[in-house]
Amino acid sequence: MDFLEEPIPGVGTYDDFNTIDWVREKSRDRDRHREITNKSKESTWALIHSVSDAFSGWLLMLLIGLLSGSLAGLIDISAHWMTDLKEGICTEGFWFNHEHCCWNSQQVTFEDRDKCPEWNSWSQLIMSMEEGAFAYIVNYFMYVLWALLFAFLAVSLVKVFAPYACGSGIPEIKTILSGFIIRGYLGKWTLVIKTITLVLAVSSGLSLGKEGPLVHVACCCGNILCHCFNKYRKNEAKRREVLSAAAAAGVSVAFGAPIGGVLFSLEEVSYYFPLKTLWRSFFAALVAAFTLRSINPFGNSRLVLFYVEFHTPWHLFELVPFILLGIFGGLWGALFIRTNIAWCRKRKTTQLGKYPVIEVLIVTAITAILAFPNEYTRMSTSELISELFNDCGLLDSSKLCDYENRFNTSKSGELPDRPAGPGVYSAMWQLALTLILKIVITIFTFGMKIPSGLFIPSMAVGAIAGRLLGVGMEQLAYNHHDWAIFNSWCSQGADCITPGLYAMVGAAACLGGVTRMTVSLVVIMFELTGGLEYIVPLMAAAMTSKWVADALGREGIYDAHIRLNGYPFLEAKEEFAHKTLAMDVMKPRRNDPLLTVLTQDSMTVEDVETIISETTYSGFPVVVSRESQRLVGFVLRRDLIISIENARKKQDGVVSTSIIYFTEHSPPMPPYTPPTLKLRNILDLSPFTVTDLTPMEIVVDIFRKLGLRQCLVTHNGRLLGIITKKDVLKHIAQMANQDPDSILFN
Amino acid sequence: MDFLEEPIPGVGTYDDFNTIDWVREKSRDRDRHREITNKSKESTWALIHSVSDAFSGWLLMLLIGLLSGSLAGLIDISAHWMTDLKEGICTEGFWFNHEHCCWNSQQVTFEDRDKCPEWNSWSQLIMSMEEGAFAYIVNYFMYVLWALLFAFLAVSLVKVFAPYACGSGIPEIKTILSGFIIRGYLGKWTLVIKTITLVLAVSSGLSLGKEGPLVHVACCCGNILCHCFNKYRKNEAKRREVLSAAAAAGVSVAFGAPIGGVLFSLEEVSYYFPLKTLWRSFFAALVAAFTLRSINPFGNSRLVLFYVEFHTPWHLFELVPFILLGIFGGLWGALFIRTNIAWCRKRKTTQLGKYPVIEVLIVTAITAILAFPNEYTRMSTSELISELFNDCGLLDSSKLCDYENRFNTSKSGELPDRPAGPGVYSAMWQLALTLILKIVITIFTFGMKIPSGLFIPSMAVGAIAGRLLGVGMEQLAYNHHDWAIFNSWCSQGADCITPGLYAMVGAAACLGGVTRMTVSLVVIMFELTGGLEYIVPLMAAAMTSKWVADALGREGIYDAHIRLNGYPFLEAKEEFAHKTLAMDVMKPRRNDPLLTVLTQDSMTVEDVETIISETTYSGFPVVVSRESQRLVGFVLRRDLIISIENARKKQDGVVSTSIIYFTEHSPPMPPYTPPTLKLRNILDLSPFTVTDLTPMEIVVDIFRKLGLRQCLVTHNGRLLGIITKKDVLKHIAQMANQDPDSILFN
Repeated sequence: MDFLEEPIPGVGTYDDFNTIDWVREKSRDRDRHREITNKSKESTWALIHSVSDAFSGWLLMLLIGLLSGSLAGLIDISAHWMTDLKEGICTEGFWFNHEHCCWNSQQVTFEDRDKCPEWNSWSQLIMSMEEGAFAYIVNYFMYVLWALLFAFLAVSLVKVFAPYACGSGIPEIKTILSGFIIRGYLGKWTLVIKTITLVLAVSSGLSLGKEGPLVHVACCCGNILCHCFNKYRKNEAKRREVLSAAAAAGVSVAFGAPIGGVLFSLEEVSYYFPLKTLWRSFFAALVAAFTLRSINPFGNSRLVLFYVEFHTPWHLFELVPFILLGIFGGLWGALFIRTNIAWCRKRKTTQLGKYPVIEVLIVTAITAILAFPNEYTRMSTSELISELFNDCGLLDSSKLCDYENRFNTSKSGELPDRPAGPGVYSAMWQLALTLILKIVITIFTFGMKIPSGLFIPSMAVGAIAGRLLGVGMEQLAYNHHDWAIFNSWCSQGADCITPGLYAMVGAAACLGGVTRMTVSLVVIMFELTGGLEYIVPLMAAAMTSKWVADALGREGIYDAHIRLNGYPFLEAKEEFAHKTLAMDVMKPRRNDPLLTVLTQDSMTVEDVETIISETTYSGFPVVVSRESQRLVGFVLRRDLIISIENARKKQDGVVSTSIIYFTEHSPPMPPYTPPTLKLRNILDLSPFTVTDLTPMEIVVDIFRKLGLRQCLVTHNGRLLGIITKKDVLKHIAQMANQDPDSILFN
Repeated sequence: MDFLEEPIPGVGTYDDFNTIDWVREKSRDRDRHREITNKSKESTWALIHSVSDAFSGWLLMLLIGLLSGSLAGLIDISAHWMTDLKEGICTEGFWFNHEHCCWNSQQVTFEDRDKCPEWNSWSQLIMSMEEGAFAYIVNYFMYVLWALLFAFLAVSLVKVFAPYACGSGIPEIKTILSGFIIRGYLGKWTLVIKTITLVLAVSSGLSLGKEGPLVHVACCCGNILCHCFNKYRKNEAKRREVLSAAAAAGVSVAFGAPIGGVLFSLEEVSYYFPLKTLWRSFFAALVAAFTLRSINPFGNSRLVLFYVEFHTPWHLFELVPFILLGIFGGLWGALFIRTNIAWCRKRKTTQLGKYPVIEVLIVTAITAILAFPNEYTRMSTSELISELFNDCGLLDSSKLCDYENRFNTSKSGELPDRPAGPGVYSAMWQLALTLILKIVITIFTFGMKIPSGLFIPSMAVGAIAGRLLGVGMEQLAYNHHDWAIFNSWCSQGADCITPGLYAMVGAAACLGGVTRMTVSLVVIMFELTGGLEYIVPLMAAAMTSKWVADALGREGIYDAHIRLNGYPFLEAKEEFAHKTLAMDVMKPRRNDPLLTVLTQDSMTVEDVETIISETTYSGFPVVVSRESQRLVGFVLRRDLIISIENARKKQDGVVSTSIIYFTEHSPPMPPYTPPTLKLRNILDLSPFTVTDLTPMEIVVDIFRKLGLRQCLVTHNGRLLGIITKKDVLKHIAQMANQDPDSILFN
């Protein structure tokens, strides 16, 4: 009768849109590990198996690093080429992008290095016209046309093949890492379609970045590669460790910042992050970064996306403008989150959401039409940021560096002071317009049904604001050398303010305001400059920005989107601050019918089947008897259904009147009764319990730290009720005066 | 009768050498926070109080950073001066160290920059002799004499004033952070004495470093500063958050590596490290680093202890020697831990431990006598490491850079290839001798009754081994350009191997082998070089070293010392791998007398006092009745004693026959009985329970993650037994075949 001790297929797996039980998963992994270790003493083969099992994690990390690094390189190269395609094509070979095309050219001087005869704008190609109003219109038209084409392809592919490929993916990944199951979200189709559409979306010139989606792509790689290793394929908890590392690799390739990537994964996305994972994540992030560097998509052997080198130190007084930038970043973050969430809610609840293709096309058309006339909006956002971060050298041809006496270095060899030339003034105007456009259009772009990251647009907004302020400060210092504040550190003729640093600080502030990242933000920025020197300004801005933004709304953009979509995510950072007790939250409430329980040795198969069909609970407590209500264990609905079905099929004589028992030994039966059904093996004999007087703050803590699905409530040893993760989430929402029904997955 | 609802002084505090209850401490802090928040709505003053309370954490971090940075600067400067004092004195002013003395001198050429007339060796000063055998002997004698004097002062001060100031302090800090209480360990006396004796110990020339003790010093600062803030003074859990941040600041100033410091705190020392702490630690670490830099103790405006800049990239093939260094580091780590622990155990158990002063003097004498003749042992260990890391430039006068054609750069402007000159060969011999001395003497030094860190000696061992291997590789490449492996990347005339990088990799490997740090180690090393380029070699070496060392013994040096001293530390990294159940661990065991319990409303004061005097348990479960054994709550021995004493003093009519009740309402009493005593307010109504069939791996997990002191065990709703943290630790030791009685604090 004990043949049911054999594992039944399906027992211990999860349905879609359910939460995993971390404790059970980890126990299962430990069992597996114990078995392998014990066997390893028996034979050499088993020993090799045990060693290979121990190293499979590292191998997996290596593969994830290699794959996500390669994909990131591929995406970079294709996006670069397709972005240039909107403006023209290379006659030497259509597969060259603008820069590459002109590199190969022989007829280019250094100063006109981006104008070469091999590169043809569309007007040249179609009508052999280079200048003039008509050529401009043709180029304008082609620009918009390509943009619309790319956007249309992107949204259609997403809609038809992989609806999960849209957005940045980070809110969903956070939810998945916290233990939720969304099948297919990290599948191969999502990977393929997201990679392709990400290139299309970036190339279309929309105000979006590829950094967030790259995290999603890396997580898809991680998830898919997990299938090659038994250890990770079968265990949801172990798989999530791998996904945490993959997220680190994603950020690592997005910014070329491996340490920042690991801290991002730790701080922002991960839920369960043991130290072993920290070390492995670091390895994966490093492999990914070096793979990307050996592909060398930017053609400059640099690991980082925006490489900056500043020459002048900053002055203590400059902390004032840096903190102002922090305040700006915080305000922008709070404003963006509010308006974007309001717009996304509108999209969800009105007719708007039914026409994603038209929405994308309209936004693309508006973006492209407004972007083309202004060179700062026409260039890709990451190029723009790169130019804003740049400290003007002598050879820079950018308008932003058009200072009046840029070519006459002073005698002492120091850099000259810099009165702004006409180029700088016109650049200021264009940048101001760019700022307004980016602020407005990003609100409508993020959340559309295409892959869209938020890092780059946020950074662009901050970088523009920072550069504007920086140039302002610089000119102020130039024109008022005698003011006390400048006097002390700006000796005449010396360049004492670096507008590029202001741009960088502004970018950090805005990114911080939107995402509420802290350490990882500063470390990513630190890895861009490589100098500890500039950490203090960055930190000051990031701190101010977070405080300002937090004062206006507690949630970062990812948490806001999680709540908007109603994912069951239990935030690990927020303290639960209310003084309620477990008895206030548990089901059944005071006037509800009693808790549905099973008894350990007196219910028939039919009784149990009736309970299963009449309720929708995902599990049932098992008690000694209804009278005593003394708890024995907990059994999951899914396991119960599978086991009964299995027994009815395979075990002789199990009928509806068979007694189900959960005890060690079968209960004494009168003769001529049908055979009994033992289900102790699916019974969880160590359910978590709390007393009814336990403060909810402790219950929330237990749920978070142990990753529970449910917890039973007792009073003086008697079973009283049950609290599930969803009850906890509902209660938290209720306490925050939110609609508790909106928080369930829909 | 409810006047006892008022808090009784003493209830909720802990005895020395006890473990705190994290859950209770955190609840208390939340209560406090809730109260302040609620009040803040009432008046402006309360609002200001609430805001200042919120920012007090940041202020505290700022103060810790400033204080620990200043102390580190002070220690650096004094140790530098006193180390030089062993060799001579400056006639310009005795407070100048050698370098500083010769800086001020006018009569020095660049090449002889460390020889100036103002600096007098002892032989010059005493007998006006500069050269010759007798002068040498005088200097030798003075060197040993000063070393003995410093060591004697250090050990006497520690012995007389602050016995806790000895050692590195990291094992104890780990234990304290995990929730243990050792009063005075982080007190002001320890701070003062540790600071002074650290300088003395470092100056005495013993094979020890100041990095570990700096962490202890920073934690003392943190603990002392906590007393200025109510929020942290009264709450043991909050205080431990501050200590985690202080540990980060300590490493930050030790190496000039703020990010590495934070990761060290996260990875190595901390137990409970919420994200808020991460951000604050980073702030403290940064402030500390910048304070140290503005003090500028090394006189070079560098933040980092060993600043290195390498010019040549490494080649993939070089991973082979790097991995060899990793293996060496792992072997050294394992060997060191075993021998050091064996020696320390001998010290604890034999007569040896009774004469700490004599022991220190003997080791100092041996070290000084052996060290003086060899210039690499005579210089301070951090100078040695610095020289070993250094990539030879054209102007280096070190013997290690004595290459034959160092002054003729090749035509192409590349660095020449470098046949070793006689200086290099003699340096190799001296370094080999230094290596042997360091390896042997460090084993005996670490653990003596003076402040002693392990980072620097470990790094020195690795750096020497690395440099030896590096020079070997370099000469091999020079002499065998035609070998296939060198052929591909070493073009003739080019310098393709950087021995300094080998030294650095070796240092990382040895440090990793001893401490088993991973991410933090690599990040600290990365912050020294500032280039992502060299992370891969460092990581390869650190990984190999950890694997090799782990294969030979699971514990790092700190964990080994924790176990040696029997601190109750529950390691968070190790998985508990055995298949035992809660019922196998709980007390009472099968044949023991029944569990001592209190009943909720039927015991008299006398009954309870008898139980208290007859047992030594630190707490008692309260049940409904002895027959039902249904659990109501848990009451701590200390709280019970204090409350009963208090009631006997203050509450009228409480006598030995008074009934103690823990229920909401007093039980019905016959008339003319003495007044009852209500103790519900000291009853923990939400004790943690597990079932008797819960696997121990889950129990261990709960203890770790929630920071419990004890957990009650039930079976089918009836109370069965209790598991304390010590039971868990004993069980783990038993399972690992260790003597379970050795693990208790003694």
